[in-house]
Amino acid sequence: MTRIGFIGLGIMGAPMAAHLATAGHQVIGHIRRPEAGQRLIAAGGTTATSIADTVADADVVITMLPNHPEVEQVVLGPDGVITRAPDNALLIDMSTIRPETAIRIADLGIRSLDAPVSGGQAGAENATLAIMVGGDADDVAYARPLFEVLGKTIVHVGPHGAGQTVKAANQLVVGGIYALVSEAIVLLEASGVDPVAGLDVLAGGLAGSRILDLKRASMINREFTPGFRVDLHHKDMGIAIDAARQADVALPVTGLVAQLMAAARAMGYGQLDHSALLRVVESLSGQGKG
Amino acid sequence: MTRIGFIGLGIMGAPMAAHLATAGHQVIGHIRRPEAGQRLIAAGGTTATSIADTVADADVVITMLPNHPEVEQVVLGPDGVITRAPDNALLIDMSTIRPETAIRIADLGIRSLDAPVSGGQAGAENATLAIMVGGDADDVAYARPLFEVLGKTIVHVGPHGAGQTVKAANQLVVGGIYALVSEAIVLLEASGVDPVAGLDVLAGGLAGSRILDLKRASMINREFTPGFRVDLHHKDMGIAIDAARQADVALPVTGLVAQLMAAARAMGYGQLDHSALLRVVESLSGQGKG
Amino acid sequence: MTRIGFIGLGIMGAPMAAHLATAGHQVIGHIRRPEAGQRLIAAGGTTATSIADTVADADVVITMLPNHPEVEQVVLGPDGVITRAPDNALLIDMSTIRPETAIRIADLGIRSLDAPVSGGQAGAENATLAIMVGGDADDVAYARPLFEVLGKTIVHVGPHGAGQTVKAANQLVVGGIYALVSEAIVLLEASGVDPVAGLDVLAGGLAGSRILDLKRASMINREFTPGFRVDLHHKDMGIAIDAARQADVALPVTGLVAQLMAAARAMGYGQLDHSALLRVVESLSGQGKG
Amino acid sequence: MTRIGFIGLGIMGAPMAAHLATAGHQVIGHIRRPEAGQRLIAAGGTTATSIADTVADADVVITMLPNHPEVEQVVLGPDGVITRAPDNALLIDMSTIRPETAIRIADLGIRSLDAPVSGGQAGAENATLAIMVGGDADDVAYARPLFEVLGKTIVHVGPHGAGQTVKAANQLVVGGIYALVSEAIVLLEASGVDPVAGLDVLAGGLAGSRILDLKRASMINREFTPGFRVDLHHKDMGIAIDAARQADVALPVTGLVAQLMAAARAMGYGQLDHSALLRVVESLSGQGKG
Repeated sequence: MTRIGFIGLGIMGAPMAAHLATAGHQVIGHIRRPEAGQRLIAAGGTTATSIADTVADADVVITMLPNHPEVEQVVLGPDGVITRAPDNALLIDMSTIRPETAIRIADLGIRSLDAPVSGGQAGAENATLAIMVGGDADDVAYARPLFEVLGKTIVHVGPHGAGQTVKAANQLVVGGIYALVSEAIVLLEASGVDPVAGLDVLAGGLAGSRILDLKRASMINREFTPGFRVDLHHKDMGIAIDAARQADVALPVTGLVAQLMAAARAMGYGQLDHSALLRVVESLSGQGKG
Repeated sequence: MTRIGFIGLGIMGAPMAAHLATAGHQVIGHIRRPEAGQRLIAAGGTTATSIADTVADADVVITMLPNHPEVEQVVLGPDGVITRAPDNALLIDMSTIRPETAIRIADLGIRSLDAPVSGGQAGAENATLAIMVGGDADDVAYARPLFEVLGKTIVHVGPHGAGQTVKAANQLVVGGIYALVSEAIVLLEASGVDPVAGLDVLAGGLAGSRILDLKRASMINREFTPGFRVDLHHKDMGIAIDAARQADVALPVTGLVAQLMAAARAMGYGQLDHSALLRVVESLSGQGKG
Repeated sequence: MTRIGFIGLGIMGAPMAAHLATAGHQVIGHIRRPEAGQRLIAAGGTTATSIADTVADADVVITMLPNHPEVEQVVLGPDGVITRAPDNALLIDMSTIRPETAIRIADLGIRSLDAPVSGGQAGAENATLAIMVGGDADDVAYARPLFEVLGKTIVHVGPHGAGQTVKAANQLVVGGIYALVSEAIVLLEASGVDPVAGLDVLAGGLAGSRILDLKRASMINREFTPGFRVDLHHKDMGIAIDAARQADVALPVTGLVAQLMAAARAMGYGQLDHSALLRVVESLSGQGKG
Repeated sequence: MTRIGFIGLGIMGAPMAAHLATAGHQVIGHIRRPEAGQRLIAAGGTTATSIADTVADADVVITMLPNHPEVEQVVLGPDGVITRAPDNALLIDMSTIRPETAIRIADLGIRSLDAPVSGGQAGAENATLAIMVGGDADDVAYARPLFEVLGKTIVHVGPHGAGQTVKAANQLVVGGIYALVSEAIVLLEASGVDPVAGLDVLAGGLAGSRILDLKRASMINREFTPGFRVDLHHKDMGIAIDAARQADVALPVTGLVAQLMAAARAMGYGQLDHSALLRVVESLSGQGKG
């Protein structure tokens, strides 16, 4: 049994915290509004309205927050985790943020892991997340039983920040494949080729991908119910660009795809599934207005 | 038994023609040098040194040539297939060329199919090619027994030119995924993350692709033995750009990837496997000089 | 007095041929419809309906045609210039086409210059064209008096094809600056900054350009009366991409800008001034629908 | 006579502060090391080693710092300008940073202007800077006499943040034109065209720009003595990308150019003039190794 302070009971965090409580851990969730804690309480946890009370006795503090400013505020701000949690508590940040922040927190001497996830809301609900962990091996070993409550694939990918870097790499590849499949669809359709038959061929050969397998039918039908929203992928492309800057590398295709994802958001598709990147590509070809 | 005139006994064409002869068809191969016909003769075929003799009695003429100028020369030029083959012979162009040429040939009233392949030299040798066919359904049905001698996947994707368009779409997606995986590797390595562990995670999730499955180990190890050469993929990216122009669509990511593939060639990697696109991306980050 | 066969009495060619006739040269213009020759006849020239008659006695043949297929047809085709003009006639191709065709014509042993122009319809009417000439110095010297009738700036930039290469370089820079100025306008406007004041600052510093000087007011006001049409610049971007391929170089920004210009055409702005590239950039940011 | 606290006596700030003191203002410069203040003292100013002492009696506080974290630290941090300067002091931030920070400072109710400059070290030394000012008209009027000591062009471009946005727009256009001119040079040289003659033509027409006027000779000769360094332009491209994100717009060419500038830095050219972007473009074409 581990005492866990959990900060960030949102769409992802609420089921995660509940799973941990159901598994027998003593979970205190940080809430601003009482409703946010209902699910955790039903699972046997408790809640607190201040960070101080949430983390005061924690062995582990888990954060699941929107982006790096929130993590920095909660962890490093006045009355933040760094001043209120026990000295040896392990901070596990499961948010998707830029690697730089994870490294900065570790450099302050805080015992910490960066452990972003993929798998989305369904993965959080079904405890089938993939978890990419950066940090010291001892801490990963210590946290592994908790990760196993939350996900199916747990991989220790390297030192502090490495989890976030792998997540950034994942998101740049996913965003890029959506752009490529979108361009293939636009080319096929404008050339009078049945995109269903065309993408079937692509899916069966070297062009094949998980995205073609799972999304080609919905993309051809312009069904963009999320799934994972454009707004979130736009945030993640920003992280990839920041990570590249931090690592002093140049990623030309990612630089362009990030702008196309920004276009998807700017054009009003922020709440649609990220496969709606197709809307941007087809608008560039004068299609999709109907 | 079909009488076949086969033009283009190269690395791909030689085993294909031999397979057709072995399967019992009467194959005449066009040769410029005697050696080019040895394999076909061993398989029971014959050879001719003029196009006129190659196609004079053909039911089917198959072309497997480097690019559209060669196809246009062989088919439409003086003493070409159009003037020398029987009126109702079926022309099957299995070269990878721009869709425009396939459409132009069909518009001249020539009974024809465009049927480019994927699977490379190994696919030609092992008769496991994927064949993308554009043209009339009757002609596809007529040619199917021949295609089944050459490949495993035969898909009729649409009207004349559609086979080439699907091939172009395939190649733009493949080239683009190589670029994305290259950018992921460069980011991971420069960030101090083990790329093996990192790409394992990507391969298991939404970023997964055939290329990650087959090529991530060799790319991380910088093993670039072809496979399919950069020079050929550079040609194919040019076809994709031409096809987009013909279809009046804009493909921004493809436009950039085509230039990166051109860079791979210009930097001297033309004879390496197309996964050597990684060399371009890493040079942009000051890596890979050692 | 030079005997000139002039092929291509279009928007550009008609005033150019007339200027040459007015200057005292003996100009025969090739026409398909009688109206096309009216202006030339008024200026003292004559017309012919076949290429053979147009060039039979020419010292110089000038071509001013839409693109390389037309040039190749007129020069190299059956009954083309190459077979019908006197052996030592000088062919001056003033069309904007890919350098490859200029080199190919010269390699056939034809005495020729490539001499594309910039300055547009106004430059042709006012005889203020800039003329970029590729070929042998002797031929340039021979042709210079004719060029001086047509333009103000005549520069011999190198061997055969060099004129077309310089034109391609010019057009890629012009297209790219339009894209950059468009992105600046979109950023300023979306940030609540007066674009007039903002672009005034840019125009006065290192970001300054002829395009900012001449076009910033009309771009901010969304006035896109041509000038030089998107459709033509789209053609020219294709030439730049072809020239890069021929020269075995990689031009990443040009590859992207070519696709944005293709988008301008695909989105229906082909007949507008090329500064309408702004429409593409603003549509990517969800603007400009009103 | 205005009492000015000046924070950031670097390459730019030192001559600027000295000019203000020479003009008769009472300038206190913030120093960490005594040498930093010598020039200001020689011009009649004084120095202080704490921010509190620097700004305690100031009418105006000027900051000239590397990037937004330094500005945020100096202005908003513990013992920062916000707590130590008189309530009605005017903060003029002349650093080049993201617009977001300027807006955030103004939103805190601080009387402030954002006033980034262009013109570089020479402009600072010679008091010929161009100054782009964002903020309230009253404050701009109040500060104008100070700006006139420092620069030649002073433009009030809009509300808080507008100065930084215009600077970002300026830098994206400048970076982009360098990329375009580099691509033109690479194309010309690889095609066997004399780049001097070629760029002369471009400079005289619609492709003309300040960069072509000032830099084409040095670029062709590969002379990259700064001037303005790649490292700084890399920082500024990051600001442009951030500004686009903040304004919710998509800038595809800027996204790509930012990565090319990142490549220039990653390839080891960070200390060269920003025109060394040419090194990146030529390396993509296998050139420039010699």
